[in-house]
Amino acid sequence: MEIHTFFIILLAILLSARILGELAARLGAPPVIGELAAGVLLGPSLLGWVEPAPVIRLLAEIGIILLLFEVGLETDLQRLAKTGFKPVMVAFAGVALPFAGGFGVAYSLFGLDLLVALFIGGTLTATSIGITVRVLTDLNRHRSHEAQVVLGAAVLDDVMGVILLALLYEFSKGGGISLTNTGKVVLFIALFMVLAPLAAKLIAEIINRFERRSQIPGLLPSTVVSLVLFFAWLSHAVGAPELIGGFAAGLALSRRFVMPMAIAIRTNEDFAHRVEEQMKPISHLFTPIFFVVVGLSLNFREIDWTSSFVWLFSTALFIVALLGKLAAGFVIKEPLFNRIAIGLAMTPRGEVGLIFAELGRSSGILSGEIYAALILVVALTTLLPPFALKYFYSRPSATTT
Amino acid sequence: MEIHTFFIILLAILLSARILGELAARLGAPPVIGELAAGVLLGPSLLGWVEPAPVIRLLAEIGIILLLFEVGLETDLQRLAKTGFKPVMVAFAGVALPFAGGFGVAYSLFGLDLLVALFIGGTLTATSIGITVRVLTDLNRHRSHEAQVVLGAAVLDDVMGVILLALLYEFSKGGGISLTNTGKVVLFIALFMVLAPLAAKLIAEIINRFERRSQIPGLLPSTVVSLVLFFAWLSHAVGAPELIGGFAAGLALSRRFVMPMAIAIRTNEDFAHRVEEQMKPISHLFTPIFFVVVGLSLNFREIDWTSSFVWLFSTALFIVALLGKLAAGFVIKEPLFNRIAIGLAMTPRGEVGLIFAELGRSSGILSGEIYAALILVVALTTLLPPFALKYFYSRPSATTT
Repeated sequence: MEIHTFFIILLAILLSARILGELAARLGAPPVIGELAAGVLLGPSLLGWVEPAPVIRLLAEIGIILLLFEVGLETDLQRLAKTGFKPVMVAFAGVALPFAGGFGVAYSLFGLDLLVALFIGGTLTATSIGITVRVLTDLNRHRSHEAQVVLGAAVLDDVMGVILLALLYEFSKGGGISLTNTGKVVLFIALFMVLAPLAAKLIAEIINRFERRSQIPGLLPSTVVSLVLFFAWLSHAVGAPELIGGFAAGLALSRRFVMPMAIAIRTNEDFAHRVEEQMKPISHLFTPIFFVVVGLSLNFREIDWTSSFVWLFSTALFIVALLGKLAAGFVIKEPLFNRIAIGLAMTPRGEVGLIFAELGRSSGILSGEIYAALILVVALTTLLPPFALKYFYSRPSATTT
Repeated sequence: MEIHTFFIILLAILLSARILGELAARLGAPPVIGELAAGVLLGPSLLGWVEPAPVIRLLAEIGIILLLFEVGLETDLQRLAKTGFKPVMVAFAGVALPFAGGFGVAYSLFGLDLLVALFIGGTLTATSIGITVRVLTDLNRHRSHEAQVVLGAAVLDDVMGVILLALLYEFSKGGGISLTNTGKVVLFIALFMVLAPLAAKLIAEIINRFERRSQIPGLLPSTVVSLVLFFAWLSHAVGAPELIGGFAAGLALSRRFVMPMAIAIRTNEDFAHRVEEQMKPISHLFTPIFFVVVGLSLNFREIDWTSSFVWLFSTALFIVALLGKLAAGFVIKEPLFNRIAIGLAMTPRGEVGLIFAELGRSSGILSGEIYAALILVVALTTLLPPFALKYFYSRPSATTT
């Protein structure tokens, strides 16, 4: 890509995200909806000005990882731990129920092939952690108890999604599924999730010491971004999604991070503050790119609006996609309000659903019509829950619970 | 490029730039030398781990434009204006003398073809504004009177370089040179340089008003970066180098910007402060990428160290390249100290020289041997002056003038 073309595309992305985000806020919608809409507007669905070129996709990836880093920074590990096994249960139910529902609709109701039905079920398991977290932040509920449950569940869901995707992919290649391999991956990821924050904490301490003695300004942005990139890379290396690495690094640098077993490296409040201060502008710059790219990837032109199959099939899938995630909020003991909030927050499929659908199509498993129906389901589950959550939280009863 | 490959490359660039930059500072060298060395180390010259892939080049371009934006932010337009015509004279002499010297050495002394000699002369005219500015900042002399002269001259030199390159390119295609076209480009660029800061100032005022009413955090990073990208794009559109647009945007947002003819939009001190505060981490993240990429592009393996022609030719060119820029410091009335400082600061050819040499090679005008000699001259003029300037400024007489 030519440099000046790149500049003008990046400009269009940043500016449209900001303008439509502000507009959404004025109209009472969550700003993230404005950013997604900016992508739909600029992309193939409407104007067709911008396509998600590789460079833009890479910047978007940095954006989502930095967003998860920010989320980690603001996460209180002790509060997260207090939710106990609830996130695990929500995540399992939120994967199993939509998978079963999607598979059932496709296999039994519409009589599709086994592999096709498995991919459709897989697509419905996804939770877009980015959109989930952004909506809760936009509504200023990200520190609430139910948000902690959602955060834990969404992280686990992302991990399960990657494993499921790998399994389906192996299965589709006719290689059969190796449970030993899967077990190994699960073990690696579990180890990573426990050890990564500890390792990141040690590295952060080194950065802190160097910063005090550095003679050149600007040490924090480059070293902290390096740290985040390293853990994202490491996360990928053990088979987990990259953004988990960003989350682990953020947790470690959070001012509320506590080491287990009381081998406490005291959290340096001042250092944590400087990291937050200097990383905020960087993540504010990059994260909108991610949401715009999700919007760019939702191509509504690929949907044949005259096909009754697309309408019927996507309606059926949307119902199980919504009910499956909503039901996941009901497998734990919580007040009704929290159960609904958790279920709604887990509903957006976003980019994770698109990855499933895309892989299914590119490997020739999903036909154009089925792919189109899935895109529609992903779009509906991504765009509607933010409105529903916003409405739900603005009801008078929301403040009392 | 795969996402995790991209992450690890970006990590290697950021981290090696920081480590070698710190090391350079400890050893008493300017940090920018460490960043260039990081590129030489990672690139084809030594380890061969990283090549400047398109994505990395685009990030580097953002880096240099943000650096020029920062320079603009810190520039006092009134102080710059006080230098009068001195920068113009230095720039003209700094283009004419190395061009004549390089052409003379190639054409008369070594008997090369006319077109080849013209390209060699052109390569020697370049001044790397990025390296020049960074060295002066590293030495904490960027606010001095001589730095203002160098800044003005380097900006003009960059503009002249782009025009010269376009002329040579046209000439090499056998199209002849159209003076009307050249005049038009010069006029456009002059208009841009006068009007861009005014336009940027108006847009900044709009951003300022929006920021006060925005309901979503993070307005400044995305809008200010958009502004910078827009002026970089506009600068390219009128035929000037992109970084001039970054500089113009920076000037306009500087707290010392004054509108001509007293139609003053009062500079909002608080807004200027917030822009500086939030843009610093972003430019600190991106600018080292630029210097590492310059280092990556210096491929010492392409030089045949056993060729006596390369040694003789590059020595002769180095002498005229150095003397030509040094002499440019002597065409204005300044104390001896300032004249030498200005000449030395104008000497680094950096990426601008590489672009000339690269174009000459890719269009088949420069042979491999001549290209290698030019690379060596660019490397020497880029790497030595920072040391010379540092030594020069650390002498006892430096503080008295």
